[in-house]
Amino acid sequence: MKIVVYIRLKDTVLDPQGKAVVGGLRDLGFTEVADVKVGKMIELYIGDVAVSAEALTGRVREMCQKLLVNTVIEDFRFEVVG
Amino acid sequence: MKIVVYIRLKDTVLDPQGKAVVGGLRDLGFTEVADVKVGKMIELYIGDVAVSAEALTGRVREMCQKLLVNTVIEDFRFEVVG
Repeated sequence: MKIVVYIRLKDTVLDPQGKAVVGGLRDLGFTEVADVKVGKMIELYIGDVAVSAEALTGRVREMCQKLLVNTVIEDFRFEVVG
Repeated sequence: MKIVVYIRLKDTVLDPQGKAVVGGLRDLGFTEVADVKVGKMIELYIGDVAVSAEALTGRVREMCQKLLVNTVIEDFRFEVVG
């Protein structure tokens, strides 16, 4: 089973990496780019476990809160892909 | 207009960062995690431009190939979000 976690900086948090990418794109002539935010996408491959989809969702949320996401500055969402 | 680019390492490329995350999750008791791949999610905010959706798609593909993605080791896809 595959779960994809999408992590992005909260809107109120400055994103210097994104600003650098905007600068790079504009220098290359892509002047239509107004802003860029750089986030993470983490793919989790889960082995065979005999748990309900609900329990698994809870486990993944726990993984995000305990390790994958800095919830002070980042938001996350995830989806079960297959 | 917002476009989200999803970038992931090709399957044949080693992902040491992912391996480190697997180790961390297992140490925390999430032993059901078999593998992890860490990728990027880049949000592009495009200002008002009078181009067709098709032309914009072409521009974004060009941005990916010229700056955002290392096409030797990474795959990408993107979607127009709104």
